[in-house]
Amino acid sequence: MEEGKLRFGVLGGGSWGTAIVKMLSENLEHISWYMRNESAIRHLKVEGHNPNYISSVQFDVSKFLLSNDINEVVSSSDVLIFAIPSAFLENELQRLSVSLSDKIIFSAIKGIVPESGLIVGEHFHDYYQIPFKNIGVLTGPCHAEEVAMERLSYLTIACADSSKAELVAKVLKSDYIRTKISDDIIGTEYAAMLKNIYAIAAGIAHGLGYGDNFQSVLMSNAIREMKRFIDKVYKMKRNINNSAYLGDLLVTGYSTFSRNRMFGNMIGKGYTVKSAMMEMNMVAEGYYATKSAHLLHEKLKKKSKTPIINAVYNILYEEKNPKKVFKKLTEKLD
Amino acid sequence: MEEGKLRFGVLGGGSWGTAIVKMLSENLEHISWYMRNESAIRHLKVEGHNPNYISSVQFDVSKFLLSNDINEVVSSSDVLIFAIPSAFLENELQRLSVSLSDKIIFSAIKGIVPESGLIVGEHFHDYYQIPFKNIGVLTGPCHAEEVAMERLSYLTIACADSSKAELVAKVLKSDYIRTKISDDIIGTEYAAMLKNIYAIAAGIAHGLGYGDNFQSVLMSNAIREMKRFIDKVYKMKRNINNSAYLGDLLVTGYSTFSRNRMFGNMIGKGYTVKSAMMEMNMVAEGYYATKSAHLLHEKLKKKSKTPIINAVYNILYEEKNPKKVFKKLTEKLD
Repeated sequence: MEEGKLRFGVLGGGSWGTAIVKMLSENLEHISWYMRNESAIRHLKVEGHNPNYISSVQFDVSKFLLSNDINEVVSSSDVLIFAIPSAFLENELQRLSVSLSDKIIFSAIKGIVPESGLIVGEHFHDYYQIPFKNIGVLTGPCHAEEVAMERLSYLTIACADSSKAELVAKVLKSDYIRTKISDDIIGTEYAAMLKNIYAIAAGIAHGLGYGDNFQSVLMSNAIREMKRFIDKVYKMKRNINNSAYLGDLLVTGYSTFSRNRMFGNMIGKGYTVKSAMMEMNMVAEGYYATKSAHLLHEKLKKKSKTPIINAVYNILYEEKNPKKVFKKLTEKLD
Repeated sequence: MEEGKLRFGVLGGGSWGTAIVKMLSENLEHISWYMRNESAIRHLKVEGHNPNYISSVQFDVSKFLLSNDINEVVSSSDVLIFAIPSAFLENELQRLSVSLSDKIIFSAIKGIVPESGLIVGEHFHDYYQIPFKNIGVLTGPCHAEEVAMERLSYLTIACADSSKAELVAKVLKSDYIRTKISDDIIGTEYAAMLKNIYAIAAGIAHGLGYGDNFQSVLMSNAIREMKRFIDKVYKMKRNINNSAYLGDLLVTGYSTFSRNRMFGNMIGKGYTVKSAMMEMNMVAEGYYATKSAHLLHEKLKKKSKTPIINAVYNILYEEKNPKKVFKKLTEKLD
C-alpha cells in the first residue's frame, strides 16, 4: 500500500488533533481536517493557527480542507485519524451519512465510548462493521505541547495489518517524530486509557502531600496493575515496559503538562470533583476512564487485583475521603 | 532469630546513613554509629543533629554509641549496615582489626567496589569470607531527604536467608516506612547501581533540551536495558517492575533530589566532567557506576545491548560530545 495515493483526514480540533495535523503537515501536501468549532476554523483560515490549542503552531492552511462538516472530511479521506474525546465520539459519528466501510480508521483517542462501553477500536468494529485489519491505534508517550515545540517524541502505531501501521508511521515520521509499529491494538488502547487513571492517582497523592519516594512506588505498582488488567482483557505476548505502555504511563504520571494529574492534584488538595472540573474548565479524560475501567473490570470473568483503579473510583464516584482511601491504598502497594 | 537480642551498627555518616539511623531510632534503644568526621560527631553529641546531612533530623543521642573508630562500632554490633560510598568502602575495611566473620552484613551502598570490581555483597563474600546467608541488601526507592520529612517510603530488604531479611525489615518499619523482603541480593544491588547511570542519562537529556516525551521513552528503554543487563549477570525469576528495580529507577531519574540527575544535567548543559564535579562539590555515585558497569559488561561472556550505559560512558570517560552521542542514542531507542 502506498501512502502517496491515500488521502488523510484528521477528526478533532483539540490539542492532540492539532498536533497530529502538524506532524502530517511535515509530509503531506493535502490534509482534510474536521473540527466542530466554526470560529476556530475561521481563525485558522485567517491567522494560520488554532486559537484554542497549541496556538504557537503556524500552519500552511492552503494544504487543508478545513470543515465543520464531518461528512465532507470523511468522504474526502481514505485514512481517518480520530482525535475526538471518547465521550463525544458517538455523538459525532451519529452525524455521518457517508459510509465508513471502506475507510482505514486510526484512533488517537484515549478512553472508552460510553454508549457501548468499548474501547474505540472495538466500537468501530462492533458498531460500524469495520474489519480489524482496517483499524489502528496511534499512541504516545506524546504530549501535544512538545510536538508543538518540535521536541523529539516517539509514537507507536498499532494495527493488525502491519502494512497499514507502516504507512501511517511513514506519514507521521519527521526530524522530531520517531515511530514504532505494533500489532497490539487492544493493549495499546487500554494502556492509553488506564494511564490517565494512574495519572489522576499520582495527582491525588501529590495533592495529599505524598512525596517522590511514594510516587515511584505508585508508578511501579501502576504498571504492574496495568499489565494484569490488560492481560485479563486480551492475553498476548507484549512487553509492558515498551514506550506505548510504560512510557505513556510515565509521561502522563510525571509530567506537568498532564491535565489528569492536575485534576487529581486538586482532588487531593480537597476540591470536590465538581469544583475541580469547574476550576479546570474541562473534564479530564481519566475521569470517564475511571468509570469505564471500573465497569469493564466488573464484567471480566477472571478479575485481576486493581487497587489503584478502585481507590480512584471510590474517590471520584463514591465520594469517599481521598486521605482515608489513600491511607488504605498504601497498605496494598509494595 | 529475634532482633531484640541483636545489636545494630550503622557505618557511614552521609545522608543515607543518617536516614537509616533515623529509621532504626524509631524502634531501637541502642544503635552504634560509625562516621569518619570527628567534628560531625562532636556536633551531633552537642546539638543532636548531623551538621552536614539531613540536618533537620533531631536525634536522642543518648541512644548512640557514636564513634569514629570503626573497630569500636563493629565489635559492639551483630548486624552491620554499611552506608559508605562504594569508592571508599575498601579503604575503611582496611582499618578493621576486628573480624567480620560472625557478623550479619547489610549493604545500603549503591555501586561497585573499585578495588575488586564487585558489587558490595560479592565483595564481602569473596574478600571477607562472609557466607551469602549473612549478606543482605537494603534498597529504596528512597531519598534520605524524604525520610527526614517522614514522608511515606518503601524499602526492600533482600537476603538469601529470609529470616534475616525479616528481622532487618522489622527494625526499619515505622509509620512512614513500609518494608518488603526479597531473595534477590544480586539483582537489587545491580539495580541500585545501574539506576544512577540512567539518572545521569536523564539529566544529560534534560540539559540538552529534550523534553518530557523523550524522558519517558528514555526511562522505558532504561528499565528494559536494566533487565537485560541483570538477567545476564544473574538469571532468576524477578519482576523488574517491582519497587526495588523500577521504583528505584524512577525516583532517581525523575526526582529533583537526585544528585546524579543534577550532575548529568550540568554535563548536558555543557560543563566538563571536572567542572561539574567541582561545581557540585561532590562526585555523583553514577560517575563511578558508569565505569564499573562498562568494565563489568566487557567481562560478561554473554553480552546484552546497553546503548544508554554506552552513551553515558562515552560522554563521561571518552570525552565524546554529549549532543552527538545523544543524537545517535535516540536512534537506538524505541
